[in-house]
Amino acid sequence: MSEPLRHLRADGTAHMVDISSKEVTAREATATGRVLLSAAAVRALREGTAPKGDALGVARLAGIQAAKKTPDLVPLAHPVAVHAVEVDLTVTDDGVEIRASVRTADRTGIEMEALTCVSVAALAMVDMIKAVDKLAVITDVMVVAKSGGRSGDWTRDP
Amino acid sequence: MSEPLRHLRADGTAHMVDISSKEVTAREATATGRVLLSAAAVRALREGTAPKGDALGVARLAGIQAAKKTPDLVPLAHPVAVHAVEVDLTVTDDGVEIRASVRTADRTGIEMEALTCVSVAALAMVDMIKAVDKLAVITDVMVVAKSGGRSGDWTRDP
Amino acid sequence: MSEPLRHLRADGTAHMVDISSKEVTAREATATGRVLLSAAAVRALREGTAPKGDALGVARLAGIQAAKKTPDLVPLAHPVAVHAVEVDLTVTDDGVEIRASVRTADRTGIEMEALTCVSVAALAMVDMIKAVDKLAVITDVMVVAKSGGRSGDWTRDP
Amino acid sequence: MSEPLRHLRADGTAHMVDISSKEVTAREATATGRVLLSAAAVRALREGTAPKGDALGVARLAGIQAAKKTPDLVPLAHPVAVHAVEVDLTVTDDGVEIRASVRTADRTGIEMEALTCVSVAALAMVDMIKAVDKLAVITDVMVVAKSGGRSGDWTRDP
Amino acid sequence: MSEPLRHLRADGTAHMVDISSKEVTAREATATGRVLLSAAAVRALREGTAPKGDALGVARLAGIQAAKKTPDLVPLAHPVAVHAVEVDLTVTDDGVEIRASVRTADRTGIEMEALTCVSVAALAMVDMIKAVDKLAVITDVMVVAKSGGRSGDWTRDP
Amino acid sequence: MSEPLRHLRADGTAHMVDISSKEVTAREATATGRVLLSAAAVRALREGTAPKGDALGVARLAGIQAAKKTPDLVPLAHPVAVHAVEVDLTVTDDGVEIRASVRTADRTGIEMEALTCVSVAALAMVDMIKAVDKLAVITDVMVVAKSGGRSGDWTRDP
Repeated sequence: MSEPLRHLRADGTAHMVDISSKEVTAREATATGRVLLSAAAVRALREGTAPKGDALGVARLAGIQAAKKTPDLVPLAHPVAVHAVEVDLTVTDDGVEIRASVRTADRTGIEMEALTCVSVAALAMVDMIKAVDKLAVITDVMVVAKSGGRSGDWTRDP
Repeated sequence: MSEPLRHLRADGTAHMVDISSKEVTAREATATGRVLLSAAAVRALREGTAPKGDALGVARLAGIQAAKKTPDLVPLAHPVAVHAVEVDLTVTDDGVEIRASVRTADRTGIEMEALTCVSVAALAMVDMIKAVDKLAVITDVMVVAKSGGRSGDWTRDP
Repeated sequence: MSEPLRHLRADGTAHMVDISSKEVTAREATATGRVLLSAAAVRALREGTAPKGDALGVARLAGIQAAKKTPDLVPLAHPVAVHAVEVDLTVTDDGVEIRASVRTADRTGIEMEALTCVSVAALAMVDMIKAVDKLAVITDVMVVAKSGGRSGDWTRDP
Repeated sequence: MSEPLRHLRADGTAHMVDISSKEVTAREATATGRVLLSAAAVRALREGTAPKGDALGVARLAGIQAAKKTPDLVPLAHPVAVHAVEVDLTVTDDGVEIRASVRTADRTGIEMEALTCVSVAALAMVDMIKAVDKLAVITDVMVVAKSGGRSGDWTRDP
Repeated sequence: MSEPLRHLRADGTAHMVDISSKEVTAREATATGRVLLSAAAVRALREGTAPKGDALGVARLAGIQAAKKTPDLVPLAHPVAVHAVEVDLTVTDDGVEIRASVRTADRTGIEMEALTCVSVAALAMVDMIKAVDKLAVITDVMVVAKSGGRSGDWTRDP
Repeated sequence: MSEPLRHLRADGTAHMVDISSKEVTAREATATGRVLLSAAAVRALREGTAPKGDALGVARLAGIQAAKKTPDLVPLAHPVAVHAVEVDLTVTDDGVEIRASVRTADRTGIEMEALTCVSVAALAMVDMIKAVDKLAVITDVMVVAKSGGRSGDWTRDP
């Protein structure tokens, strides 16, 4: 293996960064986000009367499945073996709070998987409730904690 | 074709709503969103020095491709023939503003495609810049206008 | 358009049959199937204590999503715009009965979508319950009714 | 890595179980199933005159490819690196018997891959022969043997 | 529907061109290509002894399936309903000649589907034979004829 | 694990070869190819006036993404964790030269990923420029170097 793939390209063109020499270690990332909804939509979620059925269950599953599709959605993301996903959806007076934790034992971090999980759970939530509330807003999608890997543990300041 | 599939299910379980009797009409939807970034990240985008290469180009393309994948991501979304997609990314002092317009001639609206396009463009942007700014936030993802279909034209109040 | 693609190939090789001259008509297909389970597994489903969570909800959604993936799974199936999907799962003393109805307005029948929906719902059910019952059997997956298209309405003899 | 993701969730919601601390070991699973067909369909298979071409070859390949798609079809299945797949299709007087063996060296079992392989091979077989026999039934799809992993070797009683 | 999506963008960025106002018409495209192989590889194909099995059948099916995946592979390609695919593979003394015809009734041409079909059939052929010949070359992949659509019938000069 | 999956099948049918006992080692492959274009198309690429936007950027990204989709396109290819991808596109007087390097640390070689990367980059290039040049030809797609694995380093003779 004579010369390694360069980490930065001279001409600034897009490329998938080389991770082949990074170590396989346990890694976890947690992301959160919110879907802002009308009072009527919140009521429909609390009463289980969203028009297309179980909105919370569908959004949770959409998020879990999307975590596995991250390398297909994010062009330069590396394929990562997703080893665990948990998604919590909490109905509040303002809408729905989403929190996702993803875990792997692989060569690179799993933050994009956590963010993709939250974003797609939010998209599915909007789809389930849009007949009741066409003004839904997805907001505050961000990584809040990660652990493992070379850079170590990190928690976002509140 | 004796009895139509029911639009609402008695037991509240998830189902894909029947659109087979809806008319094929031209439809368009526009969604917007923002990625909040640090000053250093904004500078990298303006100078074209994002570590993985052309961040704006990659995010734009990720959004366009994601619009086509909407029915694979959003569990109860209908497959829709996407006929046009445009994505505008504008670097501001606070980060990146994303605006996507999607058009079809089909039996159902295309708002979920526009929202998915914006969300995945935002995810790709976060991926391209995360080595510079791990605090990026995706926010204010929402439908701002739609036209066509039975419900007619609509623009979100500012 | 001088000469049509042939419906049968002289050399017997696989090909996707030409449907471009068939008419777009409303079409529906219903398929059924069963997953045979142990008494302990049936109890877990009835009590909602399956180890990975809401088994019936996950299987239902897996079936709906699989209907959309039929042309990706069945090599010579035509892409069909799925317009409606309903999946019913009924827990019996022997396991779970699955019934799926799929509807489209397109150029070819939608039986494969209904069968794929039932088969993948069954696979997801096995996955959800396999920690309790590793002897699960998927059985009796078949089309039971179809309507629309040139061949007209048809119901399987009981 | 302070606290592990929980194996069972208090609220019974769906989640992808954590396998990150399981060991990478060689694992194999074998599943079988049958497609029941009419005498005319069996004859077409034996004479190689199925209307869309080489039915056995197409079904075999559909099964192999589906094994790789298992995590995309089964919502809570973990991505597994499929290392070998073999599919045997045997034409009998009653239809077609399918037997698939799948092998990996990974952190979790590969039974779902073997079952998905058999199920999708069966769906493809139905598609190839449905112009001759619209009464085809997929039946007796089950795991018959597995080896490797913590639980060790196991063979289903006949 | 006030203003149409622009066909050309002022800033030269990538976008999916608007086809929503184009008519649905029958369209067909034919592409060809070649895989250059060693004498030993040609012999293995003629004798049916390629190491991974039926190379011609696998390549043919890979091509058919790839035609359906064109919009997932080619970023700005529109989703098109593929209505027919035929792939012919001919073993010559120099390797394998591939010819694919694809047909649709849709709003845009289907040349990219025909080219993708040939390219992926060629890739699959290389994969099937690479244990015998690691010097295989895919060459001369091009559109040779198309018909239908506004631009009418066209055949490439020999 | 009593008996290994056989490397060659007695009946010559297609199967995915067993790699579970091969070692995980760093592996790299490089492939090249060309798209032959008219003088007008070359000019459009050099002046950045290709009708659908940034042709070189889109082709590069299409290639990178396709490398990750290789096991979905090439039926008997093993899933491989792609760890790095670089694609260089050079506009010449005759068209575009494409060179792709792909790297992994896995159980099998990554030549098919490099070839798929080049082929799909070429397809995307043809799509971007086809409104200017409908005679584009994809040619000379081949592996030019590989390293790692049991067979060691290899470079194609010029």
